[in-house]
Amino acid sequence: MLEFEALLRSYADRVEGYLHSCFTDADEPQQVLFDAMRYSLLAGGKRLRPVLAQAFCELCGGSAMDALPFAAAVEMVHTYSLIHDDLPCMDNDDYRRGRLTNHKVYGEATAVLAGDALLTAAFGHLAAAPLPASRVVKATRVLSLCAGELGMVGGQVLDMEAEHRVCTEEEVLAIQSRKTGALISAACQLGVIAAGGSPAQQQAAADYAASLGLAFQIEDDILDVVGDAAKLGKATGMDQNKNTIVRLHGVEACRARITEETQRAVAALAPFGQAEFLTELAQRLTSRDH
Amino acid sequence: MLEFEALLRSYADRVEGYLHSCFTDADEPQQVLFDAMRYSLLAGGKRLRPVLAQAFCELCGGSAMDALPFAAAVEMVHTYSLIHDDLPCMDNDDYRRGRLTNHKVYGEATAVLAGDALLTAAFGHLAAAPLPASRVVKATRVLSLCAGELGMVGGQVLDMEAEHRVCTEEEVLAIQSRKTGALISAACQLGVIAAGGSPAQQQAAADYAASLGLAFQIEDDILDVVGDAAKLGKATGMDQNKNTIVRLHGVEACRARITEETQRAVAALAPFGQAEFLTELAQRLTSRDH
Repeated sequence: MLEFEALLRSYADRVEGYLHSCFTDADEPQQVLFDAMRYSLLAGGKRLRPVLAQAFCELCGGSAMDALPFAAAVEMVHTYSLIHDDLPCMDNDDYRRGRLTNHKVYGEATAVLAGDALLTAAFGHLAAAPLPASRVVKATRVLSLCAGELGMVGGQVLDMEAEHRVCTEEEVLAIQSRKTGALISAACQLGVIAAGGSPAQQQAAADYAASLGLAFQIEDDILDVVGDAAKLGKATGMDQNKNTIVRLHGVEACRARITEETQRAVAALAPFGQAEFLTELAQRLTSRDH
Repeated sequence: MLEFEALLRSYADRVEGYLHSCFTDADEPQQVLFDAMRYSLLAGGKRLRPVLAQAFCELCGGSAMDALPFAAAVEMVHTYSLIHDDLPCMDNDDYRRGRLTNHKVYGEATAVLAGDALLTAAFGHLAAAPLPASRVVKATRVLSLCAGELGMVGGQVLDMEAEHRVCTEEEVLAIQSRKTGALISAACQLGVIAAGGSPAQQQAAADYAASLGLAFQIEDDILDVVGDAAKLGKATGMDQNKNTIVRLHGVEACRARITEETQRAVAALAPFGQAEFLTELAQRLTSRDH
């Protein structure tokens, strides 16, 4: 237990240090852009994706350091997606994690550009990784695929489109696997790739990510409902407009589904042999409301 | 002369064909995203950047086909930048090349995401190129650098910042070299990289691009002025709000500068020996108003 916490901390601290060293050129006149990029990139958070990348890299015999540029790249993609999601033309959010959103501080135009620059930089960090070129190219392919029109961005579009109607379970899963699942998958796969792992190991990492991502998302949706219920003083709070599995099947059925997906995630780790950290991570991430 | 036209046409047609084959997955539910991406990607234009990439690749002993995925990637980055530039929070343009802008057709949110997806796909196309991995990694580094916070996006921010004041020549050059010059440079360099050219050849391509980009930009600014003058019936039309070299030095001095930069671009080609196409391209691009 203590060992888990220490390892989690060391993974998160390592990427935090790396991210703090980015975009610090003092001589550039476009300082405000750097400020805007760092404002969102260094806003804290669990750094779940970089943690996963490092853990999978170690699991495949690499060092966590090997995975660091890849881990940071995934976090940059995650950060850009949050900046663009918060824009007035998207979710129009003024606050994120208790701080003003990027466009509220820097204005809409700079926020769009800060997101663009973070996405662009992410691929630059992949390409700057001191790893064999074949691994960098593989990582670039996976990150582009998971983050692009067939992955995260595609999920965003589906989510917007589904806003004003009730989705089937299949549709909800299609949205969530792209919108949040794809980038978690990229993080896990990039860890394997950084270590020079096999295609079978990359597939196992993707399987783990798919189950973890789904369990994590359902857990989030349950917390939303329970949180809403507590806040509103209602017995069964339900976000009427959000397409979630919880909305379709209710909290109890979803708790069973979380258990099932967590077991699946853990089972996906079998080919790696001992995988204590990632096993415990799956179990903890998906039992946040108990 | 005729040979030049035929070659120009074949470069442009080749990339046009490649771009037409992109984003056509019929089974994906996020079809509207693909439509939005293709709407802007296939809106025509000179395909200057892909032409440059292919020409430099051939100049360094590669085939134009080798450069095709790189050429297409640069065009995707160019296209995404136009979509985001046209947004209401940026230039707020309703029309581009006589057609409605992306957000006027698909809405702001989808336009932001279509741009994001094109930028993401650009790096995927680099990584999918059937070339040695070391070249792909080098191309990824160059494209990220030229398109990101130190290049194109940085130039955008500087341009916005300078909108309401008169810039010095140094500032105007700093904006233009980043905002438009950097991606032209990426196109030329990626052509050399696709062919496995030397660092000296890559530098020569960057030098050519720097002079060409500047001459091209000044030429554009002159055409704006001359166009405005003709349209408005004024003897000396001058866009009062746009920071350009023309505004600082006047049309005549700028014509001399164009000649000078064109000569510099042609001189940069010297290490390559015979470079007829790129020589003529520089001369034609920079004499559009004569």
